[in-house]
Amino acid sequence: MEKQNIDWSLYLCTDRRLMSSSTIEENVECALKGGVTAVQLREKECSSREFLELALRVKGLTSRYGVPLIINDRVDIALAAGADGVHVGQDDLPCRTVRQIAGPDMLIGVSVSALDEAIRAEQDGADYLGVGAMFPTGTKTDAEVITLDLLKEIRKAVSIPIVIIGGINMNTAPQFKGLGIDGIAVVSAIVAQPDVEAAARGLLELWKA
Amino acid sequence: MEKQNIDWSLYLCTDRRLMSSSTIEENVECALKGGVTAVQLREKECSSREFLELALRVKGLTSRYGVPLIINDRVDIALAAGADGVHVGQDDLPCRTVRQIAGPDMLIGVSVSALDEAIRAEQDGADYLGVGAMFPTGTKTDAEVITLDLLKEIRKAVSIPIVIIGGINMNTAPQFKGLGIDGIAVVSAIVAQPDVEAAARGLLELWKA
Repeated sequence: MEKQNIDWSLYLCTDRRLMSSSTIEENVECALKGGVTAVQLREKECSSREFLELALRVKGLTSRYGVPLIINDRVDIALAAGADGVHVGQDDLPCRTVRQIAGPDMLIGVSVSALDEAIRAEQDGADYLGVGAMFPTGTKTDAEVITLDLLKEIRKAVSIPIVIIGGINMNTAPQFKGLGIDGIAVVSAIVAQPDVEAAARGLLELWKA
Repeated sequence: MEKQNIDWSLYLCTDRRLMSSSTIEENVECALKGGVTAVQLREKECSSREFLELALRVKGLTSRYGVPLIINDRVDIALAAGADGVHVGQDDLPCRTVRQIAGPDMLIGVSVSALDEAIRAEQDGADYLGVGAMFPTGTKTDAEVITLDLLKEIRKAVSIPIVIIGGINMNTAPQFKGLGIDGIAVVSAIVAQPDVEAAARGLLELWKA
């Protein structure tokens, strides 16, 4: 998968605690049918072996849809599963360290909620940024909420793709159009919906309209 | 550190919940002064960033004493910290996968409690085995206890070094001498003792006598 060809429009982050489907694979496949353009797998509770096996199964799905699979935090799982990327927050391994151990081809995303974090991530070799939280969110209650002005400053300061995250849904997404943002990252607005496929399709149409 | 020169006699596994000292670094340094010959760092609760920073600090200590530092489970942390090895259980990444992502120089240890697990680990490129639990232990309450006969079978079946683990202390260690076992792995018999350095020294003298 060529890094520069990736469509960041609709970036799905999984959360097994919020899912409306019985398995993560089911949930992800419905979201892929609905048109999500990137998938991040986030698992904090299971063993490394279970995480790897899940990642391998989900990689099978994302590959069929030509969509990158990105692993949250665990560079070793990303490497072991042949995932396309790894996403790190400010409490995970530093971007520069991830690049050293993951090599030049692995996509690296970094969560940032401050201008200096964004600039440093780009300097350290990040391929994209997850910027937020844009709104308070039940998914990550400790996430700092940032202003629209800060988002615009970050957009001006870096040239790598930006996806916004935190409370993004059908109601809140439209206000971020026309700001040079590459995509929206969502958790509950897809995984927790009664019709996951329709939820994904609706968000994608809204964002791309 | 040349793999074949490693002294496995007294293998310390950390456990911050059991420590008698206020920090892991303090605890490990006392154990190093007492003569432990290998250190495994095991952290399940902290963030990846905290684990890395702790591993880098402990690597500074173990290097001064010429002792290998081995990271439990997290291959990415081992690579990022420049640790000497990684130790995986049956619920962690498979040994063969670890070898692929960690390269030929990284020490890989595998926990086994069955003959077939031991043989497979050696075939898959493990550098040593942690065999146990030899006794029921409060440190890992779900660990299966194995018989002395099984330990002897495993010793006959593989040629890589073996350390035994699970309830090993001053009282239980002597019965395993003369069986071709390379060392004893301990948690509470060192980290939970009022005098960590003396506890390590006592165990080392007992095992080497």
